[in-house]
Amino acid sequence: MSDVFPSRVYESRIQRAQHLCTEHGLEGLIIPAGAQLAYLTGSWISTHERLAALIIPAAGTPTFILPAVDRGDVAKSAIPELDITVVGWVDGDNPHALAVQALSPTGYHKDPTKVVGVGADLTADHLLPIQELLGCRTVVATTVLAELFVRKDQAEIEQLRLAGAAIDRVHAQVPQLLRPGRTEREVAEDIEKLILAEHTAVDFIIVGSMENGANPHHDFSDRQLVSGEMVVVDIGGTFGPGYHSDCTRTYIVGGPASLDTHVLAAEMNSMYEVLLSAQEQAVAAVKPGMKACEIDRIARDVITQAGYGDYFIHRTGHGIGLSTHEEPFIMAGNELVLESGMAFSVEPGIYIPEKFGARIEDIVVVTDTGCERLNAQPRTLQ
Amino acid sequence: MSDVFPSRVYESRIQRAQHLCTEHGLEGLIIPAGAQLAYLTGSWISTHERLAALIIPAAGTPTFILPAVDRGDVAKSAIPELDITVVGWVDGDNPHALAVQALSPTGYHKDPTKVVGVGADLTADHLLPIQELLGCRTVVATTVLAELFVRKDQAEIEQLRLAGAAIDRVHAQVPQLLRPGRTEREVAEDIEKLILAEHTAVDFIIVGSMENGANPHHDFSDRQLVSGEMVVVDIGGTFGPGYHSDCTRTYIVGGPASLDTHVLAAEMNSMYEVLLSAQEQAVAAVKPGMKACEIDRIARDVITQAGYGDYFIHRTGHGIGLSTHEEPFIMAGNELVLESGMAFSVEPGIYIPEKFGARIEDIVVVTDTGCERLNAQPRTLQ
Repeated sequence: MSDVFPSRVYESRIQRAQHLCTEHGLEGLIIPAGAQLAYLTGSWISTHERLAALIIPAAGTPTFILPAVDRGDVAKSAIPELDITVVGWVDGDNPHALAVQALSPTGYHKDPTKVVGVGADLTADHLLPIQELLGCRTVVATTVLAELFVRKDQAEIEQLRLAGAAIDRVHAQVPQLLRPGRTEREVAEDIEKLILAEHTAVDFIIVGSMENGANPHHDFSDRQLVSGEMVVVDIGGTFGPGYHSDCTRTYIVGGPASLDTHVLAAEMNSMYEVLLSAQEQAVAAVKPGMKACEIDRIARDVITQAGYGDYFIHRTGHGIGLSTHEEPFIMAGNELVLESGMAFSVEPGIYIPEKFGARIEDIVVVTDTGCERLNAQPRTLQ
Repeated sequence: MSDVFPSRVYESRIQRAQHLCTEHGLEGLIIPAGAQLAYLTGSWISTHERLAALIIPAAGTPTFILPAVDRGDVAKSAIPELDITVVGWVDGDNPHALAVQALSPTGYHKDPTKVVGVGADLTADHLLPIQELLGCRTVVATTVLAELFVRKDQAEIEQLRLAGAAIDRVHAQVPQLLRPGRTEREVAEDIEKLILAEHTAVDFIIVGSMENGANPHHDFSDRQLVSGEMVVVDIGGTFGPGYHSDCTRTYIVGGPASLDTHVLAAEMNSMYEVLLSAQEQAVAAVKPGMKACEIDRIARDVITQAGYGDYFIHRTGHGIGLSTHEEPFIMAGNELVLESGMAFSVEPGIYIPEKFGARIEDIVVVTDTGCERLNAQPRTLQ
């Protein structure tokens, strides 16, 4: 993750953050280390329990606060080229006071009109003392500044597109790995190497055959593959400045089907047809103006009408970018209206307990008129 | 991390948590997934952005809230054997309302006398809506319930002791790996296998030779080792039900010293003598009644008096248990008084920029009269 965009990309993101603060009546933002900090500065610094955070006032120069011992890490980001004051703190200093001072030298004295946005990842051990010192209301910045974090700009979409193509090249080689007699673990080890050849890091690998595929939280096991069996392969990695790939295909192990799998073949096929239709219809419905919950509903209705409703036990999708799970979550109850530039997975699944499961997942980006799929490998049962 | 203590261990921890809530005037605790949840239930569940949390009222039956899709994970913990109500939520439900209801069906209506403790890891996206619904003050549970989380019980100390012995067995094999011409990365790859043979997971591996050892955040590189060079090796893994090892030794690469390293040998040796003395004196000072900052001060004074004060650029230590960095932090400003059962690292270091660095780290557990070191490998330059 050494790649960093040119500094003007971050400069314009920070300016936009300040503009949105003003528009939404926020005094400023406190963004801890993590994907949102990487979005704003290119920094993936990790300082464990010690506070590192970018403090962005609605107007004026932002401040980056970090343990002094980690100062060297700043050089790996765009921060040295940006108009950001870097403040190192040492043990004995109060980093929470430094964070609050960077917004307002005097705090907000319980002024009910003042609101400060904080990153969703800020943990209680930092948030509670910061709230105390701020003396005003805090809100999750992602909720208020959805425009900033949820709508991807062109540079980001291009990275997600490249990440999608990278994982597609991995999936293209998966069928030849799924040979009878091999274990899920052996297949996963091969996939690990393939992902690393195309990415900077492996995020996760799921190889779930038959009853293991029926558990969406399975990773891989020593179970041996048998010809004719159904296998869920859900894989992802980190790419470029930290963008993620995430794609699922369901396969049938090659070779003549065994007696067991032969008996189940018709059942697997008819279930898969329903799933494929659900995924296709959900993707086809994605466009600006639709709500996140409506996309979930469309996939769910197809599956429910075919009698598999009880077996689709998770949300339809999640946003993706510098983190693998972020807004927009494509799920019941999420009234978020889709806008162009939002990127998320569409991944319905059907899981028949103790028997088999299937999932189809593509990353899509909302365009002005519909959406672009970032994964292009065949979605039919291979 | 499939090992779980017998359920009576967790039962008594939860009872103690409830007792401490009453003693400290807390209505109860909200503990998200992570090390504190593992401490209380044996569960290492991971549910990404979706709330999973144990809600412990000061009196009565605790509730474990988690996404319904993750219910199967509960079986890997002691929860099924404990008096805990398990509540699965699905998309569209409000998990924050469920969490608050598990404490108080009516919330606390801005009653200034009510206080609820939350786990230090609870993130803003959950903490802010929970605060809103609670309507009362929240505090970090670790601060208030230090006794619960910071003082290890005998079962935990035994796990830390075993983890310490495990990493000692790895360090015992390190000298033979540090041969001239090998790269830090090659050494790290060997160490990875050795750690895995003794632990369930590798936490981190630092192999820092010469100028790389002068950067406490270095991991390993393709730099080749030369005889007579100084190498910092800081390694740790996960053991048993999730306890961590963490031990640093500094080595000299074997074989006849080169001209360069020969010139530096006296300087390296005299610096190392100072460091060893600092570590020994700090460990010797550990006993109940001392403050965390005093232990830091003792190590720092030895190093400062020898003229290396500017080169000891981090805190002296950190607590360790189910997480690798936790209270007590052995640092300036931490007035925490040490008590028997606290476990932490004592790891002063001296880092001469661009030249070389050294660090010596042992885990110690405070006893009634002093402390027990959990690492026993020689501390002299090898």
